[in-house]
Amino acid sequence: MHLKEVKAPADLKGLDYEELDSLAAEIREELVSTVSQRGGHLASNLGVVELTMALHRVFDLPGDKIVFDVGHQSYVHKLLTGRYTLFHTLRSFGGISGFPKRSESEYDVFETGHSSTAISAALGLARARDYKGEKHAVIALVGDGALTGGMCYEALNDAGNASTKLIVILNDNEMSIAPNVGALSRYLTNIRVSKGWTSTKKKVKRGLNNIPVIGKPVYNLINWTKDAVKSLLVEEDGFFTALGFHYFGPIDGHDLKSMEHTLQLAKEFDGPAVIHVLTRKGHGYDKAEEKPEMFHGTPPFYVETGGLRTASKLPSFGKTMARELAEMAREDPRIVTITAAMPSGTGLSAFQKEFPERMLDVGIAEEHAVTMAAGMAAGGMKPYFAVYATFFQRSYDQLIHDVCMQKLPVTFMLDRAGLVGEDGATHHGVYDLASLLPMPNMTVLAPRDLNELKAMVRWSATYDAPLAIRYGRKSIDQGEKYPYAGFVPGKWEVLEQGSDCTLLAVGSMVEEALATREKLMNYGISAAVVNCSTVKPMDEEMLRSLKDKPIITMEEHVLVGGFGSAVSAFCVAEEIPGPLLSFGIADTFVQHGRRDQLMKYLGLEPGQMARRICYALENKRGMKHE
Amino acid sequence: MHLKEVKAPADLKGLDYEELDSLAAEIREELVSTVSQRGGHLASNLGVVELTMALHRVFDLPGDKIVFDVGHQSYVHKLLTGRYTLFHTLRSFGGISGFPKRSESEYDVFETGHSSTAISAALGLARARDYKGEKHAVIALVGDGALTGGMCYEALNDAGNASTKLIVILNDNEMSIAPNVGALSRYLTNIRVSKGWTSTKKKVKRGLNNIPVIGKPVYNLINWTKDAVKSLLVEEDGFFTALGFHYFGPIDGHDLKSMEHTLQLAKEFDGPAVIHVLTRKGHGYDKAEEKPEMFHGTPPFYVETGGLRTASKLPSFGKTMARELAEMAREDPRIVTITAAMPSGTGLSAFQKEFPERMLDVGIAEEHAVTMAAGMAAGGMKPYFAVYATFFQRSYDQLIHDVCMQKLPVTFMLDRAGLVGEDGATHHGVYDLASLLPMPNMTVLAPRDLNELKAMVRWSATYDAPLAIRYGRKSIDQGEKYPYAGFVPGKWEVLEQGSDCTLLAVGSMVEEALATREKLMNYGISAAVVNCSTVKPMDEEMLRSLKDKPIITMEEHVLVGGFGSAVSAFCVAEEIPGPLLSFGIADTFVQHGRRDQLMKYLGLEPGQMARRICYALENKRGMKHE
Repeated sequence: MHLKEVKAPADLKGLDYEELDSLAAEIREELVSTVSQRGGHLASNLGVVELTMALHRVFDLPGDKIVFDVGHQSYVHKLLTGRYTLFHTLRSFGGISGFPKRSESEYDVFETGHSSTAISAALGLARARDYKGEKHAVIALVGDGALTGGMCYEALNDAGNASTKLIVILNDNEMSIAPNVGALSRYLTNIRVSKGWTSTKKKVKRGLNNIPVIGKPVYNLINWTKDAVKSLLVEEDGFFTALGFHYFGPIDGHDLKSMEHTLQLAKEFDGPAVIHVLTRKGHGYDKAEEKPEMFHGTPPFYVETGGLRTASKLPSFGKTMARELAEMAREDPRIVTITAAMPSGTGLSAFQKEFPERMLDVGIAEEHAVTMAAGMAAGGMKPYFAVYATFFQRSYDQLIHDVCMQKLPVTFMLDRAGLVGEDGATHHGVYDLASLLPMPNMTVLAPRDLNELKAMVRWSATYDAPLAIRYGRKSIDQGEKYPYAGFVPGKWEVLEQGSDCTLLAVGSMVEEALATREKLMNYGISAAVVNCSTVKPMDEEMLRSLKDKPIITMEEHVLVGGFGSAVSAFCVAEEIPGPLLSFGIADTFVQHGRRDQLMKYLGLEPGQMARRICYALENKRGMKHE
Repeated sequence: MHLKEVKAPADLKGLDYEELDSLAAEIREELVSTVSQRGGHLASNLGVVELTMALHRVFDLPGDKIVFDVGHQSYVHKLLTGRYTLFHTLRSFGGISGFPKRSESEYDVFETGHSSTAISAALGLARARDYKGEKHAVIALVGDGALTGGMCYEALNDAGNASTKLIVILNDNEMSIAPNVGALSRYLTNIRVSKGWTSTKKKVKRGLNNIPVIGKPVYNLINWTKDAVKSLLVEEDGFFTALGFHYFGPIDGHDLKSMEHTLQLAKEFDGPAVIHVLTRKGHGYDKAEEKPEMFHGTPPFYVETGGLRTASKLPSFGKTMARELAEMAREDPRIVTITAAMPSGTGLSAFQKEFPERMLDVGIAEEHAVTMAAGMAAGGMKPYFAVYATFFQRSYDQLIHDVCMQKLPVTFMLDRAGLVGEDGATHHGVYDLASLLPMPNMTVLAPRDLNELKAMVRWSATYDAPLAIRYGRKSIDQGEKYPYAGFVPGKWEVLEQGSDCTLLAVGSMVEEALATREKLMNYGISAAVVNCSTVKPMDEEMLRSLKDKPIITMEEHVLVGGFGSAVSAFCVAEEIPGPLLSFGIADTFVQHGRRDQLMKYLGLEPGQMARRICYALENKRGMKHE
């Protein structure tokens, strides 16, 4: 049976292991080929090919339910649940998502994107099942990296106590995004090493395979012997059993047969169970196996070489920030940086190279990261936490309670603020302003380009209170046309003068405002452009000075509670005219696609904005004439 | 030495154990006496009298640092660090706080209030110490209940890996706020039971004490024998050691001498250590020992009887909600309720009484609670999560990512929304609107009184999307003067007509708006009063209809990103006049005190608001005349 013939997971059930092996190879080929074109999460999906097949053979979806933690390892699941023909549209605008989506398929029971939510969600599904007197299985598939997130532990604690039937599959790939940090990682390594199961098994297999004809059957026999199963699979273990789980494992995650056997045991077990599966990220594609971190989430690449199809010319905001910080850190011993398991994504590895002891990777633990940073600041250090804006949402309470309330000098470098593109709804960073602006003692900056970012980072070292600097995924250098003219905190920068209206733009939207200004010229409209680099506190003096011309706000952020909304509230309070228009994201979740496609979809493309501004100005003039 | 003579912790160091015993008794007397007058956290403080004394004898504060998790058990610490003479002002407006405050004392190194932050903060302080080449000790004092919060685990994981010198004291009082739930609790109980140390020790003590003269010295000798210490205190244990901590314990938390000995051992240990201390909540005051949950956080009471000084006549919003839900649950099997370790505070125990199987206590785990609820909703149930607004801040990301994005019908009952009074800055629930309004698919309601709450709860069962209902600590019944006239979602309720202006009030502020209206009459101003019971989506139709008269918004919430701000943004977008005034909380943290004192401090007392409205209206008229 070929992959294209798999219409539903039930089709897998009749296949023998030889057919399954060849199907696995086809799946890997499809994964590598599609992701090489579309970009996406490759290494993790290559690692769970057999595991996903085994799950679909032992369980009966959609009756049985699987929740995929972080969700980016659900590609194989998508391929096996009727989405093969759409798979080439992966992560593209209007195409299928790189994450589970309930609207895509009844096989996707719960949506994920952020880490460490699956056990909680699965426990909820299991409890709903119990209340309703249903009997199906509920499975949470969780990577070992996700276990550094506190939520998992809250859920394990609750589930262990509830003693309901729930299967947690711990997909132990020895690396989440970055090589795992923390005590738990060391602990899991200990299990792996001390039990030494995989390597023993491999040796036996290799030995037996050398004996022709009789070797394989004997190997299979060993594998199915009751005693062996008992000692190999049902070994008890302190950590999970302490939390009330029955522990199965560790099992070779690339051995379909033994996985199916254990899954069957767990299926029949009445209570919370954890299955410890050992997989290799990138398994089956040598480039990804060699550099799993690079192929965790990758842009399009060449299959043969593993090289990227288009290398960006500009350094990222993150890398620029990290280099600037490293330079400052040579003089300033107070500077320390923190990442929540993303040294590479945030750019901090550039800092780490020079100051390995001053870059702390705390695991996927944004809550702890913020309060730990607050502790360091209270102890006299100057910590910088670099984090994606969307994951920063996890730290909301800690920001208010531990940082702002004590006015501690922690700086937050919010990367991927705005639309992130292909990762879609779960990953857009469009709530950070709405969450930060109401927090007392918080200062919020947004650079228009790399040069301004550097200046802000420089300045941050002299500032002794909570500070957030937000920047997007797209790198911008305006050095040629708009050279950096000096960042003054609290003061906005007039980039272009104009007589008909003023465009007030935040961060990434400064570039769009400048382009909009060009378009407006075609309509005979002269627009000033202001770079609102300090979002909190606003430049009230400038705002007051602008009251005689219509103002228009622009932000890559939701409108409710965002920059435009803050400007409106200020204008109302001051009894000066509020924004004629506020451009931003309406009160809805934005799906996936290229940033330019999403901007167009949201009406934030310069041509679209220019037309709306032109229309609004005309209307206004018309009304005055009446 | 008497308590009043203790000027600094160093004063304790010269005392012998007899003097210390009598000091402990004095401290307990002071605690009971002050809290009986002022209200506050009693049981937990009575439980840590000896522990706090031991800490101050073994360590040298403020050089050494202690972080108190949740902070409400820091009263003894306050009494011993120069705040005895101010202790009678506890929790009162302008007096000392019921939580650690850096502005109060150099002995308060990190502020706390919410659960499970101390290990993170202490690890930060420890790392700062290491970077600076300092040598002092850093201690986190954590209750066993706090360990159900995921943040603790993130911190333990990071700390275990960092292997820096850090002491975590696990204050195991067998009950946090509610009797502890979850697997960890069971696990800790197992340690207690299996090691059976406390009872053994007690038996030995009792036996020896019966032998006059020689008994006590022999007992002390046993206690100090090296072997005994080794087997009793340094016993290894799976859970904490798995996370990289050296485990000491369990120790009797009311035995100063043995605690001091173990603290000394831990002080000399070079790496992360956990000391497991067994204490009894309420120890030394029989009423509190019998009902520790009642005396966790208590209003003023009579010392002799333990009875409250003033019993409120009205049922709380929470209890009313719970009773209504229980009534509905008889017919509707989908209804389930969830609490994060606060069945009593949220009122849910009233529901639990009738439906014990449908009230889930997940521990101090708000993140998990929300995603677990989302899972239940995805599985066809109708979950209600009742939680204090301030603790709900922990769930910000889960709300967006797991509830709103999937539009799941989870209902959030946000108690203590607005100013909570004496608990102060860490506990005011004044960010919920700012966080909820920007979330797509979220509906937000705020009842003006108990009757409207009931109607909203009734309606919620028919509503199939995310919903939050916020209400305050103060119970309100307007049934006589403003009988419940039917709640219509999305429609605001006009309670009073008026010709000069319209007061738009949310929840608790409806009562204040009505009082303000009365005051305005004295100035000859006729104000309409509108109950804005649906905060999201707003009643846009009504807002448009009000454009000919000045509108004034009122909310018990921060102004930035709140209701007034949303009204302003709407008015600007619609080009209708925005609010003449917006009453709410300015961009600053509000301290502790009675609600009426705080309202006055914030200018939200009806007389104050009436004067400001009057002045603003006159100004406006004046401007028109010019």
